[in-house]
Amino acid sequence: MNLTAGDIAKLAEGDLRGDASVRLFAAAPLDKACEADLAFLADPAMAPAAAAARAGCLLAPRGTEEALKDFRGAVVFTKNPRYAFMLALRLLEKELRPQPPAGTHPSAIVSPSAKVEPSAHIGPCAVVEDDAVVAYGAVVGAQCYVGRGSRVGRAARLYPGVRIMDGCEIGAECILHAGAVIGSDGYGYTSDRNVHEKIPQLGKVVLEDRVEIGANCAIDRAALEATLIGAGTKIDNLVHIAHNVRIGKNCLIIAQAGIAGSTTVGDGAIIAGQAGISDHIKIGDNAVVMAKTGIMSDVEPGQVLFGHVGRPRVQAMKVEALLSRLPEMHRTLSKIKRRLGI
Amino acid sequence: MNLTAGDIAKLAEGDLRGDASVRLFAAAPLDKACEADLAFLADPAMAPAAAAARAGCLLAPRGTEEALKDFRGAVVFTKNPRYAFMLALRLLEKELRPQPPAGTHPSAIVSPSAKVEPSAHIGPCAVVEDDAVVAYGAVVGAQCYVGRGSRVGRAARLYPGVRIMDGCEIGAECILHAGAVIGSDGYGYTSDRNVHEKIPQLGKVVLEDRVEIGANCAIDRAALEATLIGAGTKIDNLVHIAHNVRIGKNCLIIAQAGIAGSTTVGDGAIIAGQAGISDHIKIGDNAVVMAKTGIMSDVEPGQVLFGHVGRPRVQAMKVEALLSRLPEMHRTLSKIKRRLGI
Amino acid sequence: MNLTAGDIAKLAEGDLRGDASVRLFAAAPLDKACEADLAFLADPAMAPAAAAARAGCLLAPRGTEEALKDFRGAVVFTKNPRYAFMLALRLLEKELRPQPPAGTHPSAIVSPSAKVEPSAHIGPCAVVEDDAVVAYGAVVGAQCYVGRGSRVGRAARLYPGVRIMDGCEIGAECILHAGAVIGSDGYGYTSDRNVHEKIPQLGKVVLEDRVEIGANCAIDRAALEATLIGAGTKIDNLVHIAHNVRIGKNCLIIAQAGIAGSTTVGDGAIIAGQAGISDHIKIGDNAVVMAKTGIMSDVEPGQVLFGHVGRPRVQAMKVEALLSRLPEMHRTLSKIKRRLGI
Repeated sequence: MNLTAGDIAKLAEGDLRGDASVRLFAAAPLDKACEADLAFLADPAMAPAAAAARAGCLLAPRGTEEALKDFRGAVVFTKNPRYAFMLALRLLEKELRPQPPAGTHPSAIVSPSAKVEPSAHIGPCAVVEDDAVVAYGAVVGAQCYVGRGSRVGRAARLYPGVRIMDGCEIGAECILHAGAVIGSDGYGYTSDRNVHEKIPQLGKVVLEDRVEIGANCAIDRAALEATLIGAGTKIDNLVHIAHNVRIGKNCLIIAQAGIAGSTTVGDGAIIAGQAGISDHIKIGDNAVVMAKTGIMSDVEPGQVLFGHVGRPRVQAMKVEALLSRLPEMHRTLSKIKRRLGI
Repeated sequence: MNLTAGDIAKLAEGDLRGDASVRLFAAAPLDKACEADLAFLADPAMAPAAAAARAGCLLAPRGTEEALKDFRGAVVFTKNPRYAFMLALRLLEKELRPQPPAGTHPSAIVSPSAKVEPSAHIGPCAVVEDDAVVAYGAVVGAQCYVGRGSRVGRAARLYPGVRIMDGCEIGAECILHAGAVIGSDGYGYTSDRNVHEKIPQLGKVVLEDRVEIGANCAIDRAALEATLIGAGTKIDNLVHIAHNVRIGKNCLIIAQAGIAGSTTVGDGAIIAGQAGISDHIKIGDNAVVMAKTGIMSDVEPGQVLFGHVGRPRVQAMKVEALLSRLPEMHRTLSKIKRRLGI
Repeated sequence: MNLTAGDIAKLAEGDLRGDASVRLFAAAPLDKACEADLAFLADPAMAPAAAAARAGCLLAPRGTEEALKDFRGAVVFTKNPRYAFMLALRLLEKELRPQPPAGTHPSAIVSPSAKVEPSAHIGPCAVVEDDAVVAYGAVVGAQCYVGRGSRVGRAARLYPGVRIMDGCEIGAECILHAGAVIGSDGYGYTSDRNVHEKIPQLGKVVLEDRVEIGANCAIDRAALEATLIGAGTKIDNLVHIAHNVRIGKNCLIIAQAGIAGSTTVGDGAIIAGQAGISDHIKIGDNAVVMAKTGIMSDVEPGQVLFGHVGRPRVQAMKVEALLSRLPEMHRTLSKIKRRLGI
């Protein structure tokens, strides 16, 4: 690859000490890095320990020049080494995990009525149905399915085996990981004496721009309108989003969380792993539903909730601590009852 | 499309007021509907508010004729507007999401020994293995897999990427959403000093008629006999059903629930989202296991359970309420101890 | 098939009573078995009841000869009938669920730079990318994806629709069930004023030998190094393993469990169904995290934890029991307060 310590210095807008021509082939945590690796140091206090590291090039915070004077490789001193490291990873990624080339693989099945930009990639055994649109620079990976009338936005990336059902919309620069399903039917029935008749699900799913969807997620289409995931929201693996849900912008929804029908989630909210939100709930902007928490009523903006039935975090932690003392409380009560002759 | 207000009136067995020739292109919630939309009003008390709505055609309960006298579009007065709306949605669905045509896509790989009815649809890149049977009017979507000796029943619908492993049986009119896996191996090992040897899983999965399975579900084959899902049972996304489980008829099993090995669930039971049932448990008919509830012992018919360890609902809600008062209870106890000099 | 009672006797290193030539076509639980079935009896105390069973051949513990004197079929008396039954199931499996043949299906898309052993099977519509390696006797099922530079080990089995992303390593004799995803991106972002920028995920996933992965699991690649699953570990359906996680050897991880980023799990640990482990946690060797348990701090070797917030099992069960008495405790407190005039 063609990334040198000199390139890193430019990228990081930093000051290079050492050999600008050192070539870097990968990135690694500081304690594991070898001569071919780029590494970074975030905490100035760790600089003395870092001086013995073997990385070929180290991104370090300004002010650690003295502490790192014995470091053998190249060092780039910069304001935010962590951020610069991420920028370098992006360059590395382009080499290690290149974008597939433009064009349609001969084994893909693309409807004549689909509109696929020449710059897009359609992988082997992918299927693109009638009237679907695949925009400029999008990647539809191997064995993906793009349903009738769906739209895959500019530079969106669908990893292998993603299924976009008919009529759904994937925004620009979205990333969908393998096995994700977008636009499965919502779970809607009318039930009469225990017989459940399916209510047709005629809506769609809309992912706004820069949404990321984890592997094997399932996001249901709305009954009539749209299940909506706001711009910049990032969803982890195996998450379930039910029909008619509306999620705001820049939310984080962690693995195995589930959100039931017609619930709305405000901008910037965090729904942590294995959390579950009931249907028809409102979660306010910037609220945090902690891991494994169950939510059965509305959540105010900014609230942080925890517990099998979610409570405000401080209260939940207090209850949790007292649960450990419940046996002791029970013994004390018995003692008091005996004392009082109750 | 060819659905008019007159058609709706016939379908609803209702009385039409207004222009029978109004064409409807879609359906929408009442407050969002425009002139091209069908909408419905369920609650007569909301009729005055509904009079200003802009739907092209409104399904309304009998008795609201006066309250809706200023409504500008066509109105169909009928006994059960919600049900009539669902019937109309079914007609709309046929237009908006048509069944794929009969026949086998040239890119599908169908074994010469498989028996596929000419009326069935086998989609692009689907694979149908030896001795499999695909019955009259069934749809095997793009990229689906139908294993050796499996049977896909009459008018069953497999959305793209469904995998039916060998020897499994899918009943008539079943609907399987994208990515669902039917017939993966049960999780069975004999363990000796921490080394786990796989017990072959030689049974199958049987879905009776009209079962629906959500996206990315996983339903394991039995060790020897059959994992069974009873007729009319509807399963939501990302549900796990372990080997040897037997689920009754017309159950509802909501997203991300999990049922461990050899458990039986009675007819008409509801297992809500993220609930978990241990192995070798009996859940009675019409029991309800509420969301996120854990079940570690048998559940009587009709019982409604809630909690991290499931308790009868009323008791669970009482415990839940008292948990919030646990800090106060603890303070009171301290006070009493001081008072009594304990 | 060619399995006779005589074959079973040899396999079980047991003593045969009855007709060695009885042919067995399947295996069944003792109470359901018919003349064509092999069955087994584990508990000598049940032998009298078993005498009336109709199995064609019965594996029974030594010492039950007298109690089974009226059993009509062949009996093989052996030391460990359950284990012998499992060995017989393995033979049956070879007939009922044969390995696919060596060779590449003409519809598979295999890169010229991939190295596929002639003894390996590449199924229909499978995709094997550049520089991937598929070793001796491996089975890459229909519609599987093997990414660039990945390695599928000797005799590994990938069921249909498994996705191995680029650069991942699957050990010898691993079994991956349908829809499993190995090597999706870890969930890593740097967040600034609620805008989340993706941190490239440049690591890989390594499954050591004899690992089993359930249907529709998702196992993320490390950010820089490897997400590691130790040899002999068995993972059930719909499990989520985040980036940088390291799991020891011979662990059992049951359905729908989730393990967050950078957590390590020791050898022989059991993580039960729907359990959730926070990030950067250490779980000791042979620890047991019971079903639905949440873990937010390190777990010592051998500890058994249970609860929404995991506590040592005995304590958790005591707390659980006292929760049921919380209403009574609250009433008693009120009574005491009244008595004391508080």
